[in-house]
Amino acid sequence: MSVNHKIEPGTKVDLRKIDPESQGGLLKTDAAMHSARLGQRLAYLADLLYFAGQHSVLIVLQGMDTSGKDGTIRCLLQSVNTQGAHVHPFKVPSHVEIAHDFLWRCHQKTPGKGEMSIFNRSYYEDVLVVRVHGLVPETKWSQRYEHINHFEKLLTDNETIVLKFFLHISLDEQEQRLLERENEVEKSWKLSVGDWKERVLWDDYQKAYEVAIEKCSTESAPWQIIPANKKWYRNLAIMQAIVDALEPYERGWLTKLEEIGVKAKAELAVFKALPK
Amino acid sequence: MSVNHKIEPGTKVDLRKIDPESQGGLLKTDAAMHSARLGQRLAYLADLLYFAGQHSVLIVLQGMDTSGKDGTIRCLLQSVNTQGAHVHPFKVPSHVEIAHDFLWRCHQKTPGKGEMSIFNRSYYEDVLVVRVHGLVPETKWSQRYEHINHFEKLLTDNETIVLKFFLHISLDEQEQRLLERENEVEKSWKLSVGDWKERVLWDDYQKAYEVAIEKCSTESAPWQIIPANKKWYRNLAIMQAIVDALEPYERGWLTKLEEIGVKAKAELAVFKALPK
Repeated sequence: MSVNHKIEPGTKVDLRKIDPESQGGLLKTDAAMHSARLGQRLAYLADLLYFAGQHSVLIVLQGMDTSGKDGTIRCLLQSVNTQGAHVHPFKVPSHVEIAHDFLWRCHQKTPGKGEMSIFNRSYYEDVLVVRVHGLVPETKWSQRYEHINHFEKLLTDNETIVLKFFLHISLDEQEQRLLERENEVEKSWKLSVGDWKERVLWDDYQKAYEVAIEKCSTESAPWQIIPANKKWYRNLAIMQAIVDALEPYERGWLTKLEEIGVKAKAELAVFKALPK
Repeated sequence: MSVNHKIEPGTKVDLRKIDPESQGGLLKTDAAMHSARLGQRLAYLADLLYFAGQHSVLIVLQGMDTSGKDGTIRCLLQSVNTQGAHVHPFKVPSHVEIAHDFLWRCHQKTPGKGEMSIFNRSYYEDVLVVRVHGLVPETKWSQRYEHINHFEKLLTDNETIVLKFFLHISLDEQEQRLLERENEVEKSWKLSVGDWKERVLWDDYQKAYEVAIEKCSTESAPWQIIPANKKWYRNLAIMQAIVDALEPYERGWLTKLEEIGVKAKAELAVFKALPK
Protein backbone atom coordinates (compact mmCIF):
# COMPACT_ATOMS: atom_id res chain seq x y z
CA MET A 1 0.00 0.00 0.00
CA SER A 2 1.47 3.31 -1.05
CA VAL A 3 -0.49 6.53 -0.92
CA ASN A 4 0.57 10.13 -0.76
CA HIS A 5 -1.88 12.92 0.01
CA LYS A 6 0.74 15.52 0.88
CA ILE A 7 0.27 19.02 -0.46
CA GLU A 8 3.64 20.31 -1.64
CA PRO A 9 4.41 23.88 -0.50
CA GLY A 10 3.26 26.44 -3.05
CA THR A 11 0.59 24.19 -4.58
CA LYS A 12 -2.71 25.81 -5.56
CA VAL A 13 -5.47 23.91 -3.76
CA ASP A 14 -8.87 23.31 -5.38
CA LEU A 15 -10.87 20.95 -3.20
CA ARG A 16 -13.43 20.39 -5.97
CA LYS A 17 -10.69 18.66 -7.96
CA ILE A 18 -9.84 16.21 -5.18
CA ASP A 19 -12.19 13.22 -5.09
CA PRO A 20 -13.47 12.57 -1.55
CA GLU A 21 -14.66 9.14 -2.74
CA SER A 22 -11.15 8.01 -3.60
CA GLN A 23 -9.97 4.74 -2.10
CA GLY A 24 -6.44 4.95 -3.46
CA GLY A 25 -6.82 1.92 -5.68
CA LEU A 26 -7.49 -0.31 -2.68
CA LEU A 27 -10.30 -2.79 -2.27
CA LYS A 28 -12.53 -2.60 0.74
CA THR A 29 -12.15 -6.35 1.13
CA ASP A 30 -8.44 -5.85 1.80
CA ALA A 31 -8.99 -3.11 4.36
CA ALA A 32 -8.86 -5.39 7.42
CA MET A 33 -5.54 -6.85 6.30
CA HIS A 34 -3.96 -3.44 5.69
CA SER A 35 -5.38 -2.11 8.91
CA ALA A 36 -3.91 -4.95 11.00
CA ARG A 37 -0.48 -4.54 9.46
CA LEU A 38 -0.45 -0.73 9.78
CA GLY A 39 -1.83 -0.86 13.29
CA GLN A 40 1.01 -3.11 14.45
CA ARG A 41 3.61 -1.00 12.69
CA LEU A 42 2.17 2.15 14.26
CA ALA A 43 2.08 0.61 17.73
CA TYR A 44 5.72 -0.38 17.36
CA LEU A 45 6.86 3.06 16.13
CA ALA A 46 4.86 4.86 18.82
CA ASP A 47 6.56 2.69 21.45
CA LEU A 48 9.96 3.54 20.03
CA LEU A 49 9.04 7.24 20.03
CA TYR A 50 8.04 7.01 23.66
CA PHE A 51 11.01 5.07 24.97
CA ALA A 52 13.65 6.92 22.94
CA GLY A 53 12.24 10.28 24.08
CA GLN A 54 14.04 12.24 21.38
CA HIS A 55 11.11 13.50 19.33
CA SER A 56 7.47 14.50 19.70
CA VAL A 57 4.54 13.96 17.34
CA LEU A 58 1.73 16.45 16.84
CA ILE A 59 -1.24 15.27 14.79
CA VAL A 60 -3.71 17.99 13.78
CA LEU A 61 -7.13 16.82 12.61
CA GLN A 62 -9.38 19.27 10.78
CA GLY A 63 -12.49 18.82 8.71
CA MET A 64 -16.11 19.82 8.28
CA ASP A 65 -18.72 18.55 10.75
CA THR A 66 -19.17 14.75 10.42
CA SER A 67 -15.92 14.42 8.46
CA GLY A 68 -14.72 11.78 10.90
CA LYS A 69 -12.32 13.40 13.33
CA ASP A 70 -13.65 11.40 16.29
CA GLY A 71 -13.64 8.18 14.30
CA THR A 72 -10.05 8.75 13.22
CA ILE A 73 -9.01 9.31 16.82
CA ARG A 74 -10.71 6.08 17.93
CA CYS A 75 -8.86 4.24 15.18
CA LEU A 76 -5.47 5.71 16.13
CA LEU A 77 -5.91 5.09 19.85
CA GLN A 78 -6.55 1.41 19.15
CA SER A 79 -3.01 1.16 17.84
CA VAL A 80 -1.14 3.79 19.78
CA ASN A 81 -1.84 2.33 23.15
CA THR A 82 0.91 4.07 25.05
CA GLN A 83 1.19 6.30 28.08
CA GLY A 84 2.60 8.95 25.78
CA ALA A 85 -0.52 9.62 23.69
CA HIS A 86 -2.92 12.46 24.46
CA VAL A 87 -6.03 13.77 22.73
CA HIS A 88 -6.88 17.47 23.01
CA PRO A 89 -10.16 18.82 21.64
CA PHE A 90 -10.38 22.55 20.95
CA LYS A 91 -13.95 23.77 21.16
CA VAL A 92 -15.29 27.31 21.52
CA PRO A 93 -12.58 29.13 23.52
CA SER A 94 -13.21 29.96 27.17
CA HIS A 95 -13.18 33.46 28.64
CA VAL A 96 -9.57 33.03 29.75
CA GLU A 97 -8.46 31.51 26.45
CA ILE A 98 -9.97 34.31 24.38
CA ALA A 99 -8.14 36.86 26.56
CA HIS A 100 -4.86 35.54 25.12
CA ASP A 101 -3.38 35.21 21.64
CA PHE A 102 -4.95 32.48 19.51
CA LEU A 103 -2.01 30.09 19.85
CA TRP A 104 -1.87 30.29 23.64
CA ARG A 105 -4.24 27.46 24.52
CA CYS A 106 -2.89 25.12 21.85
CA HIS A 107 0.78 25.73 22.63
CA GLN A 108 0.17 24.48 26.18
CA LYS A 109 -1.00 21.13 24.83
CA THR A 110 1.88 20.48 22.45
CA PRO A 111 3.62 17.15 23.10
CA GLY A 112 6.80 16.84 25.14
CA LYS A 113 9.67 14.61 24.04
CA GLY A 114 8.45 11.04 23.57
CA GLU A 115 4.80 12.08 23.47
CA MET A 116 2.18 12.07 20.74
CA SER A 117 -0.61 14.66 20.88
CA ILE A 118 -3.70 14.52 18.72
CA PHE A 119 -5.50 17.84 18.26
CA ASN A 120 -9.22 17.44 17.49
CA ARG A 121 -9.57 20.82 15.76
CA SER A 122 -6.82 23.30 16.53
CA TYR A 123 -5.46 26.84 16.07
CA TYR A 124 -6.52 26.44 12.43
CA GLU A 125 -10.08 27.18 13.55
CA ASP A 126 -8.81 30.75 14.02
CA VAL A 127 -8.49 31.07 10.25
CA LEU A 128 -11.55 28.89 9.51
CA VAL A 129 -14.67 29.43 11.62
CA VAL A 130 -13.28 32.80 12.70
CA ARG A 131 -12.81 33.86 9.08
CA VAL A 132 -16.11 32.45 7.80
CA HIS A 133 -18.14 34.09 10.57
CA GLY A 134 -16.03 37.26 10.69
CA LEU A 135 -15.46 36.81 14.43
CA VAL A 136 -12.44 39.12 14.24
CA PRO A 137 -11.61 41.71 11.54
CA GLU A 138 -9.76 40.54 8.42
CA THR A 139 -6.70 42.59 9.47
CA LYS A 140 -6.47 40.22 12.43
CA TRP A 141 -7.11 36.80 10.93
CA SER A 142 -5.03 37.54 7.87
CA GLN A 143 -1.93 37.87 10.11
CA ARG A 144 -2.51 34.45 11.57
CA TYR A 145 -1.29 32.30 8.68
CA GLU A 146 2.21 33.66 9.19
CA HIS A 147 1.98 33.24 12.97
CA ILE A 148 0.94 29.63 12.42
CA ASN A 149 3.90 28.97 10.13
CA HIS A 150 6.30 30.49 12.67
CA PHE A 151 4.72 28.52 15.48
CA GLU A 152 4.97 25.23 13.60
CA LYS A 153 8.60 26.05 12.74
CA LEU A 154 9.27 26.51 16.45
CA LEU A 155 7.86 23.03 17.01
CA THR A 156 9.66 21.30 14.16
CA ASP A 157 12.94 22.98 15.14
CA ASN A 158 12.38 21.34 18.52
CA GLU A 159 12.14 17.82 17.07
CA THR A 160 8.38 17.75 16.81
CA ILE A 161 7.02 15.83 13.85
CA VAL A 162 3.96 17.84 12.77
CA LEU A 163 1.28 16.01 10.75
CA LYS A 164 -1.80 17.90 9.58
CA PHE A 165 -4.78 16.10 8.07
CA PHE A 166 -7.80 17.63 6.38
CA LEU A 167 -10.58 15.05 6.27
CA HIS A 168 -12.16 15.74 2.91
CA ILE A 169 -15.83 14.78 2.54
CA SER A 170 -18.46 15.83 0.02
CA LEU A 171 -21.56 17.89 0.71
CA ASP A 172 -23.73 14.86 -0.13
CA GLU A 173 -21.81 12.61 2.21
CA GLN A 174 -22.26 15.15 5.00
CA GLU A 175 -26.00 15.18 4.39
CA GLN A 176 -26.11 11.39 4.65
CA ARG A 177 -24.18 11.46 7.90
CA LEU A 178 -26.31 14.21 9.44
CA LEU A 179 -29.46 12.25 8.54
CA GLU A 180 -27.93 9.14 10.12
CA ARG A 181 -27.27 11.10 13.28
CA GLU A 182 -30.89 12.19 13.35
CA ASN A 183 -32.10 8.64 12.98
CA GLU A 184 -29.73 6.76 15.24
CA VAL A 185 -30.40 7.20 18.90
CA GLU A 186 -26.80 6.49 19.85
CA LYS A 187 -25.51 9.20 17.53
CA SER A 188 -28.19 11.82 17.97
CA TRP A 189 -26.38 13.48 20.89
CA LYS A 190 -23.74 14.55 18.40
CA LEU A 191 -26.23 16.49 16.34
CA SER A 192 -27.04 20.12 16.94
CA VAL A 193 -29.11 22.63 14.96
CA GLY A 194 -25.81 24.40 14.29
CA ASP A 195 -24.64 21.45 12.18
CA TRP A 196 -27.41 22.03 9.63
CA LYS A 197 -26.95 25.79 9.75
CA GLU A 198 -23.24 25.58 9.03
CA ARG A 199 -24.00 23.65 5.81
CA VAL A 200 -25.25 26.87 4.24
CA LEU A 201 -21.70 28.17 4.60
CA TRP A 202 -20.16 25.06 2.98
CA ASP A 203 -18.53 26.96 0.12
CA ASP A 204 -17.11 29.59 2.44
CA TYR A 205 -15.59 26.91 4.61
CA GLN A 206 -14.14 25.06 1.62
CA LYS A 207 -12.56 28.31 0.47
CA ALA A 208 -11.19 29.02 3.95
CA TYR A 209 -9.69 25.52 4.04
CA GLU A 210 -8.12 25.95 0.62
CA VAL A 211 -6.43 29.18 1.68
CA ALA A 212 -5.25 27.76 5.02
CA ILE A 213 -3.83 24.66 3.36
CA GLU A 214 -2.15 26.71 0.63
CA LYS A 215 -0.58 29.19 3.03
CA CYS A 216 0.40 26.74 5.75
CA SER A 217 1.58 23.68 3.86
CA THR A 218 5.32 24.00 4.49
CA GLU A 219 8.35 21.81 3.88
CA SER A 220 8.62 20.86 7.53
CA ALA A 221 4.89 20.74 8.32
CA PRO A 222 2.92 19.87 5.17
CA TRP A 223 -0.86 19.48 4.99
CA GLN A 224 -2.36 16.24 3.77
CA ILE A 225 -5.82 16.13 2.19
CA ILE A 226 -7.37 12.77 3.02
CA PRO A 227 -10.32 11.50 0.94
CA ALA A 228 -12.76 10.76 3.73
CA ASN A 229 -16.09 9.70 2.26
CA LYS A 230 -15.01 6.08 2.83
CA LYS A 231 -14.26 5.75 6.49
CA TRP A 232 -12.16 2.61 6.04
CA TYR A 233 -9.96 4.36 3.49
CA ARG A 234 -9.65 7.52 5.59
CA ASN A 235 -8.34 5.43 8.50
CA LEU A 236 -5.90 3.48 6.36
CA ALA A 237 -4.58 6.59 4.64
CA ILE A 238 -3.94 8.36 7.94
CA MET A 239 -2.30 5.35 9.55
CA GLN A 240 -0.09 4.96 6.49
CA ALA A 241 0.84 8.66 6.55
CA ILE A 242 1.87 8.49 10.20
CA VAL A 243 3.88 5.31 9.67
CA ASP A 244 5.60 6.94 6.68
CA ALA A 245 6.44 10.00 8.77
CA LEU A 246 7.88 8.03 11.69
CA GLU A 247 9.82 5.34 9.82
CA PRO A 248 12.79 7.57 8.96
CA TYR A 249 13.45 7.88 12.72
CA GLU A 250 13.24 4.15 13.46
CA ARG A 251 16.94 3.39 13.21
CA GLY A 252 17.94 6.38 15.34
CA TRP A 253 15.41 5.48 18.04
CA LEU A 254 16.63 1.89 18.13
CA THR A 255 20.21 3.13 18.50
CA LYS A 256 19.13 5.38 21.34
CA LEU A 257 17.44 2.46 23.08
CA GLU A 258 20.63 0.41 22.75
CA GLU A 259 22.55 3.28 24.37
CA ILE A 260 20.24 3.77 27.29
CA GLY A 261 19.65 0.04 27.60
CA VAL A 262 15.96 0.64 28.24
CA LYS A 263 14.31 -2.30 29.92
CA ALA A 264 11.45 -2.09 27.46
CA LYS A 265 13.77 -3.35 24.77
CA ALA A 266 12.67 -6.87 25.44
CA GLU A 267 9.04 -5.85 24.91
CA LEU A 268 9.94 -4.05 21.76
CA ALA A 269 11.79 -7.02 20.37
CA VAL A 270 8.53 -8.83 19.72
CA PHE A 271 7.63 -6.16 17.19
CA LYS A 272 10.92 -6.21 15.37
CA ALA A 273 9.93 -9.06 13.10
CA LEU A 274 6.76 -7.34 11.94
CA PRO A 275 6.23 -6.84 8.23
CA LYS A 276 6.89 -3.32 6.92
CA MET B 1 11.92 64.00 33.95
CA SER B 2 12.56 62.70 30.48
CA VAL B 3 14.75 59.72 29.81
CA ASN B 4 14.98 57.32 26.92
CA HIS B 5 16.99 54.14 27.10
CA LYS B 6 15.37 52.47 24.12
CA ILE B 7 17.61 50.64 21.67
CA GLU B 8 16.44 51.43 18.16
CA PRO B 9 16.22 48.37 15.88
CA GLY B 10 19.46 47.79 13.99
CA THR B 11 21.64 49.59 16.55
CA LYS B 12 25.06 48.07 17.30
CA VAL B 13 25.20 47.53 21.05
CA ASP B 14 28.44 47.96 23.02
CA LEU B 15 27.69 47.72 26.72
CA ARG B 16 31.12 49.12 27.63
CA LYS B 17 30.03 52.41 26.08
CA ILE B 18 26.89 52.70 28.19
CA ASP B 19 27.57 54.11 31.66
CA PRO B 20 25.92 51.99 34.37
CA GLU B 21 26.52 54.85 36.83
CA SER B 22 24.33 57.24 34.83
CA GLN B 23 21.56 59.00 36.72
CA GLY B 24 20.09 60.73 33.69
CA GLY B 25 20.93 64.22 34.93
CA LEU B 26 18.74 63.74 37.99
CA LEU B 27 19.68 64.47 41.59
CA LYS B 28 19.28 61.76 44.18
CA THR B 29 17.68 64.34 46.45
CA ASP B 30 14.79 64.64 43.94
CA ALA B 31 14.30 60.88 43.65
CA ALA B 32 11.51 60.64 46.25
CA MET B 33 9.53 63.38 44.51
CA HIS B 34 9.84 61.76 41.08
CA SER B 35 9.10 58.36 42.52
CA ALA B 36 5.86 59.51 44.19
CA ARG B 37 4.62 61.19 41.02
CA LEU B 38 5.53 58.27 38.74
CA GLY B 39 4.14 55.75 41.20
CA GLN B 40 0.74 57.45 41.20
CA ARG B 41 0.73 57.79 37.44
CA LEU B 42 1.62 54.12 37.07
CA ALA B 43 -1.06 53.03 39.53
CA TYR B 44 -3.63 55.03 37.57
CA LEU B 45 -2.59 53.67 34.17
CA ALA B 46 -2.45 50.10 35.48
CA ASP B 47 -5.99 50.50 36.79
CA LEU B 48 -7.15 51.78 33.41
CA LEU B 49 -5.42 48.85 31.71
CA TYR B 50 -7.20 46.45 34.02
CA PHE B 51 -10.69 47.87 33.80
CA ALA B 52 -10.62 48.60 30.07
CA GLY B 53 -9.41 45.04 29.37
CA GLN B 54 -8.31 45.86 25.84
CA HIS B 55 -4.55 45.38 26.14
CA SER B 56 -2.00 43.36 28.08
CA VAL B 57 1.43 44.37 29.38
CA LEU B 58 4.43 42.07 29.48
CA ILE B 59 7.49 43.33 31.34
CA VAL B 60 10.65 41.29 30.84
CA LEU B 61 13.45 41.87 33.35
CA GLN B 62 16.92 40.59 32.55
CA GLY B 63 20.32 41.33 34.04
CA MET B 64 23.40 39.82 35.65
CA ASP B 65 23.19 38.44 39.19
CA THR B 66 22.60 41.25 41.72
CA SER B 67 21.55 43.66 38.96
CA GLY B 68 18.33 44.39 40.83
CA LYS B 69 15.55 42.37 39.24
CA ASP B 70 13.93 41.57 42.59
CA GLY B 71 14.29 45.17 43.77
CA THR B 72 12.68 46.47 40.59
CA ILE B 73 9.76 44.10 41.04
CA ARG B 74 9.25 45.24 44.65
CA CYS B 75 9.23 48.83 43.44
CA LEU B 76 6.70 48.15 40.67
CA LEU B 77 4.37 46.14 42.90
CA GLN B 78 4.19 49.06 45.32
CA SER B 79 2.53 51.08 42.57
CA VAL B 80 0.75 48.50 40.51
CA ASN B 81 -1.41 47.24 43.27
CA THR B 82 -4.06 45.59 41.16
CA GLN B 83 -5.57 42.14 40.85
CA GLY B 84 -4.27 42.12 37.31
CA ALA B 85 -0.52 42.04 38.07
CA HIS B 86 1.45 38.80 38.19
CA VAL B 87 5.12 38.04 38.72
CA HIS B 88 6.62 34.95 37.07
CA PRO B 89 10.18 33.87 37.83
CA PHE B 90 11.89 31.55 35.37
CA LYS B 91 14.57 29.49 37.04
CA VAL B 92 16.29 26.31 35.85
CA PRO B 93 13.64 24.54 33.75
CA SER B 94 11.91 21.46 35.14
CA HIS B 95 11.96 18.03 33.54
CA VAL B 96 8.59 18.69 31.89
CA GLU B 97 9.56 22.18 30.73
CA ILE B 98 12.79 21.01 29.12
CA ALA B 99 10.83 18.34 27.21
CA HIS B 100 9.12 21.16 25.27
CA ASP B 101 10.31 24.01 23.07
CA PHE B 102 12.01 26.86 24.94
CA LEU B 103 9.05 29.24 24.64
CA TRP B 104 6.51 26.76 25.98
CA ARG B 105 6.73 27.55 29.70
CA CYS B 106 6.86 31.31 29.16
CA HIS B 107 3.99 31.45 26.68
CA GLN B 108 1.71 29.95 29.34
CA LYS B 109 2.43 32.88 31.65
CA THR B 110 1.82 35.69 29.19
CA PRO B 111 -0.79 38.19 30.36
CA GLY B 112 -4.43 38.06 29.32
CA LYS B 113 -6.35 41.18 28.35
CA GLY B 114 -6.24 43.70 31.20
CA GLU B 115 -3.35 41.97 32.91
CA MET B 116 0.26 42.91 33.52
CA SER B 117 2.85 40.14 33.81
CA ILE B 118 6.38 40.69 35.05
CA PHE B 119 8.90 38.06 33.97
CA ASN B 120 11.85 37.75 36.36
CA ARG B 121 14.23 36.29 33.77
CA SER B 122 12.55 34.81 30.71
CA TYR B 123 12.97 32.96 27.42
CA TYR B 124 15.99 35.21 26.86
CA GLU B 125 17.93 32.92 29.20
CA ASP B 126 17.78 30.42 26.33
CA VAL B 127 20.15 32.66 24.36
CA LEU B 128 22.12 33.81 27.44
CA VAL B 129 23.03 31.18 30.04
CA VAL B 130 22.35 28.47 27.46
CA ARG B 131 24.73 30.11 24.99
CA VAL B 132 27.43 30.97 27.53
CA HIS B 133 27.50 27.47 29.00
CA GLY B 134 26.89 25.70 25.67
CA LEU B 135 23.89 23.85 27.10
CA VAL B 136 22.61 23.19 23.58
CA PRO B 137 24.57 23.25 20.29
CA GLU B 138 25.03 26.60 18.50
CA THR B 139 22.83 25.34 15.63
CA LYS B 140 20.00 25.25 18.19
CA TRP B 141 20.44 28.48 20.14
CA SER B 142 21.25 30.48 17.04
CA GLN B 143 17.71 29.74 15.71
CA ARG B 144 16.15 31.14 18.83
CA TYR B 145 16.57 34.86 18.17
CA GLU B 146 14.22 34.56 15.22
CA HIS B 147 11.78 32.43 17.20
CA ILE B 148 11.79 35.09 19.93
CA ASN B 149 11.07 37.87 17.43
CA HIS B 150 8.17 35.89 15.93
CA PHE B 151 6.82 35.09 19.38
CA GLU B 152 6.92 38.71 20.50
CA LYS B 153 5.23 39.71 17.23
CA LEU B 154 2.44 37.25 18.03
CA LEU B 155 2.02 39.00 21.37
CA THR B 156 2.16 42.57 20.09
CA ASP B 157 -0.26 41.70 17.26
CA ASN B 158 -2.58 40.60 20.05
CA GLU B 159 -2.51 43.98 21.83
CA THR B 160 0.25 43.09 24.25
CA ILE B 161 2.58 45.95 25.12
CA VAL B 162 5.98 44.27 25.45
CA LEU B 163 8.63 46.07 27.53
CA LYS B 164 12.08 44.55 27.92
CA PHE B 165 14.61 45.93 30.38
CA PHE B 166 18.25 44.99 30.72
CA LEU B 167 19.48 46.14 34.13
CA HIS B 168 23.00 47.28 33.36
CA ILE B 169 25.50 47.13 36.25
CA SER B 170 29.29 47.19 36.28
CA LEU B 171 31.60 44.37 37.33
CA ASP B 172 32.75 46.47 40.31
CA GLU B 173 29.20 47.18 41.40
CA GLN B 174 28.41 43.47 41.26
CA GLU B 175 31.43 42.74 43.47
CA GLN B 176 30.21 45.27 46.03
CA ARG B 177 26.76 43.75 46.05
CA LEU B 178 28.02 40.19 46.37
CA LEU B 179 30.23 41.25 49.31
CA GLU B 180 27.22 42.95 50.89
CA ARG B 181 25.25 39.74 50.56
CA GLU B 182 28.03 37.85 52.30
CA ASN B 183 28.07 40.30 55.15
CA GLU B 184 24.38 40.95 55.70
CA VAL B 185 22.56 38.13 57.37
CA GLU B 186 19.25 39.10 55.81
CA LYS B 187 20.70 39.00 52.30
CA SER B 188 23.03 36.03 52.63
CA TRP B 189 20.36 33.55 51.62
CA LYS B 190 20.47 35.10 48.17
CA LEU B 191 24.14 34.26 47.74
CA SER B 192 25.35 31.00 46.28
CA VAL B 193 28.82 29.84 45.26
CA GLY B 194 27.50 29.93 41.72
CA ASP B 195 27.24 33.72 41.87
CA TRP B 196 30.98 34.10 42.30
CA LYS B 197 31.68 31.43 39.70
CA GLU B 198 29.53 33.10 37.06
CA ARG B 199 31.59 36.31 37.43
CA VAL B 200 34.46 34.60 35.60
CA LEU B 201 32.14 34.46 32.60
CA TRP B 202 31.23 38.17 32.84
CA ASP B 203 32.57 39.06 29.40
CA ASP B 204 30.82 36.11 27.76
CA TYR B 205 27.53 37.14 29.33
CA GLN B 206 27.96 40.77 28.30
CA LYS B 207 28.61 39.61 24.75
CA ALA B 208 25.57 37.31 24.82
CA TYR B 209 23.44 40.21 26.06
CA GLU B 210 24.74 42.52 23.35
CA VAL B 211 23.83 40.01 20.65
CA ALA B 212 20.39 39.28 22.12
CA ILE B 213 19.58 42.98 22.43
CA GLU B 214 20.82 43.71 18.91
CA LYS B 215 18.91 40.85 17.31
CA CYS B 216 15.71 41.22 19.33
CA SER B 217 15.23 44.95 19.68
CA THR B 218 12.34 45.42 17.28
CA GLU B 219 9.99 48.25 16.38
CA SER B 220 7.11 46.74 18.32
CA ALA B 221 9.14 45.24 21.18
CA PRO B 222 12.32 47.27 21.72
CA TRP B 223 14.93 46.57 24.40
CA GLN B 224 15.82 49.24 26.92
CA ILE B 225 19.22 49.28 28.62
CA ILE B 226 18.74 50.75 32.09
CA PRO B 227 21.79 52.11 33.97
CA ALA B 228 21.39 50.19 37.22
CA ASN B 229 24.36 50.89 39.47
CA LYS B 230 22.18 53.49 41.27
CA LYS B 231 19.14 51.63 42.48
CA TRP B 232 17.04 54.76 42.87
CA TYR B 233 17.74 55.78 39.28
CA ARG B 234 17.07 52.25 37.96
CA ASN B 235 13.62 52.32 39.58
CA LEU B 236 12.78 55.79 38.31
CA ALA B 237 13.92 55.01 34.77
CA ILE B 238 11.84 51.84 34.60
CA MET B 239 8.74 53.48 36.07
CA GLN B 240 9.12 56.32 33.59
CA ALA B 241 9.54 53.91 30.68
CA ILE B 242 6.38 52.02 31.62
CA VAL B 243 4.39 55.24 32.06
CA ASP B 244 5.66 56.45 28.66
CA ALA B 245 4.60 53.16 27.06
CA LEU B 246 1.10 53.17 28.55
CA GLU B 247 0.20 56.86 28.16
CA PRO B 248 -0.64 56.64 24.45
CA TYR B 249 -3.47 54.26 25.38
CA GLU B 250 -4.91 56.41 28.16
CA ARG B 251 -7.53 58.20 26.08
CA GLY B 252 -8.73 54.99 24.44
CA TRP B 253 -9.03 53.20 27.77
CA LEU B 254 -11.01 56.09 29.26
CA THR B 255 -13.36 56.02 26.28
CA LYS B 256 -13.81 52.28 26.75
CA LEU B 257 -14.66 52.80 30.41
CA GLU B 258 -17.26 55.42 29.45
CA GLU B 259 -18.78 52.91 27.03
CA ILE B 260 -18.98 50.02 29.43
CA GLY B 261 -19.89 52.32 32.31
CA VAL B 262 -17.63 50.37 34.60
CA LYS B 263 -18.48 50.89 38.21
CA ALA B 264 -14.83 51.44 38.96
CA LYS B 265 -15.00 54.76 37.13
CA ALA B 266 -15.72 56.54 40.36
CA GLU B 267 -12.59 55.05 41.90
CA LEU B 268 -10.59 56.02 38.89
CA ALA B 269 -11.82 59.59 39.00
CA VAL B 270 -9.70 60.31 42.04
CA PHE B 271 -6.61 59.78 39.94
CA LYS B 272 -7.68 61.93 37.04
CA ALA B 273 -6.35 65.14 38.52
CA LEU B 274 -2.86 63.72 39.02
CA PRO B 275 0.07 65.59 37.48
CA LYS B 276 1.54 64.06 34.34
